Amino acid sequence: MNGPRAAASGPPLAILCGAGAFPLEVAREAREAGREPFLVGVVGATDSAIEAYPHVWVRMGEVGKLFSALRARAIAEMVIIGAMARPEFADLRLDWGAVKRAAGLAQLFRRGDNGLLAGLAAIIEREGIRIVGAHDVAPRLLAPVGPFGARAPSPEDETDIALGVRMLDALSSFDAGQGAVVAAGRVLAIEAAEGTDAMLARVAGMRANGRLRFAGPAGVLVKASKRGQDLRLDMPAIGPKTIEGAARAQLRGAAVAAGRVLVVDRERMARDADTASLFVAGFAPSVAAG
Amino acid sequence: MNGPRAAASGPPLAILCGAGAFPLEVAREAREAGREPFLVGVVGATDSAIEAYPHVWVRMGEVGKLFSALRARAIAEMVIIGAMARPEFADLRLDWGAVKRAAGLAQLFRRGDNGLLAGLAAIIEREGIRIVGAHDVAPRLLAPVGPFGARAPSPEDETDIALGVRMLDALSSFDAGQGAVVAAGRVLAIEAAEGTDAMLARVAGMRANGRLRFAGPAGVLVKASKRGQDLRLDMPAIGPKTIEGAARAQLRGAAVAAGRVLVVDRERMARDADTASLFVAGFAPSVAAG
Repeated sequence: MNGPRAAASGPPLAILCGAGAFPLEVAREAREAGREPFLVGVVGATDSAIEAYPHVWVRMGEVGKLFSALRARAIAEMVIIGAMARPEFADLRLDWGAVKRAAGLAQLFRRGDNGLLAGLAAIIEREGIRIVGAHDVAPRLLAPVGPFGARAPSPEDETDIALGVRMLDALSSFDAGQGAVVAAGRVLAIEAAEGTDAMLARVAGMRANGRLRFAGPAGVLVKASKRGQDLRLDMPAIGPKTIEGAARAQLRGAAVAAGRVLVVDRERMARDADTASLFVAGFAPSVAAG
Repeated sequence: MNGPRAAASGPPLAILCGAGAFPLEVAREAREAGREPFLVGVVGATDSAIEAYPHVWVRMGEVGKLFSALRARAIAEMVIIGAMARPEFADLRLDWGAVKRAAGLAQLFRRGDNGLLAGLAAIIEREGIRIVGAHDVAPRLLAPVGPFGARAPSPEDETDIALGVRMLDALSSFDAGQGAVVAAGRVLAIEAAEGTDAMLARVAGMRANGRLRFAGPAGVLVKASKRGQDLRLDMPAIGPKTIEGAARAQLRGAAVAAGRVLVVDRERMARDADTASLFVAGFAPSVAAG
């Protein structure tokens, strides 16, 4: 119940918190914008640091408990933010509120990530809870256009970025592909369920074992959001860990879709990127035509 | 100079040998078809077992030595077969024959794998060496349509296979994507430079660390060839190792593009798949419409 606080003027805001630092950054930004945050932690996923704010803990599947807590506080808007391992339906601990909705829930778990999230969002909104994007509540967390730090992509990097963007776009109708690594016209790695950090570790591994041979830094990480991806539900994100991974993979830099990727701790990212001689930059959507 | 041998009736055939068992399987098939094979081993890549046949060793970049050896034996046709780590241009040990062609070579190394291979093929063919496909010389090594072993894909598996095939097709114009793992409508992994074995190991890792949670076997490995991929130069391949990897990843089975994927030791694959309760099956090209 402590933490920095401004006069709460806007309506209260629930934040359904996954792992990582984002939920707290969103809570801070919301509070600065005059909206009192109420954090919902998921047992086993969310960091206990959320307890610095008003909060409740739920287990995955405790749908009824979630809605009761929001109703008790007259909360009508919710942000969903932070990494969450996709559970299997069989692993959910369904409470009565969930059991009432179970038939619909079980079907959703046959879908891709986008499909699952869209279905869960529909269930939540049917309860009168409007889901808003972290980018609406905390627009300062979005990637801007242009370099974050001192370095900028070279013309060759721009060509690789454009290739990566076009490829991710081609993948997006398959509900896959938020990231890729491209070097000198070659696609080295494509991200699916493993996530960006694991993909970067893979590239680092291929450099180390000689499967990829480049003299010096090579390749660009490209992060975009899937076409048709509901950014309120699942927005790609990067942070200092991404820079660490890119440096280990001996990349030349990282490029993210401006306005469509969240950035954790941008100042530190820029500093770390400079130290590692990498660029980090937001690209405008039009880059795919390049 | 030993090994089984039939009366050599057709023209001699050079086999440029990468790693693995394929070069020897192609040599055996060629000899059974009455063509005397001449194996070209690449130092550091090819297994010394090729020495059972007439052979020469070259280092990567010894282009002149390769052409001289073929010319001395009046060989006008060559198969290129087996895994080969893509070298960097700077790592090549260029002999005089290569230096004469170096400007063209250096440019090729800016391309994707397909582009690089197509360019190398053009250089070879300019010397009067025709490149033929392993599938032309040894058609029995190609994946047939239908199950290899006792198990066949379920209707749900067929749906996942069709999704994988469509996605790989969408990727192929980017000179990427020979394989993917799809489970219940979700794309779990997409293969790029790491290769199929590493992709399967990744899925196994995600099962082990809980990032992927399924009760029991889930998912299908889909292997296809890239659209526009010159199958004479780079044909996707599977073998007993693929089954081992698929079993570790707790997949339900593997599906390969019939007529467009090479199969090492099909009998053993079928046996291993049966033992691991997996299916392995060739799909007809029309499956992408499914």
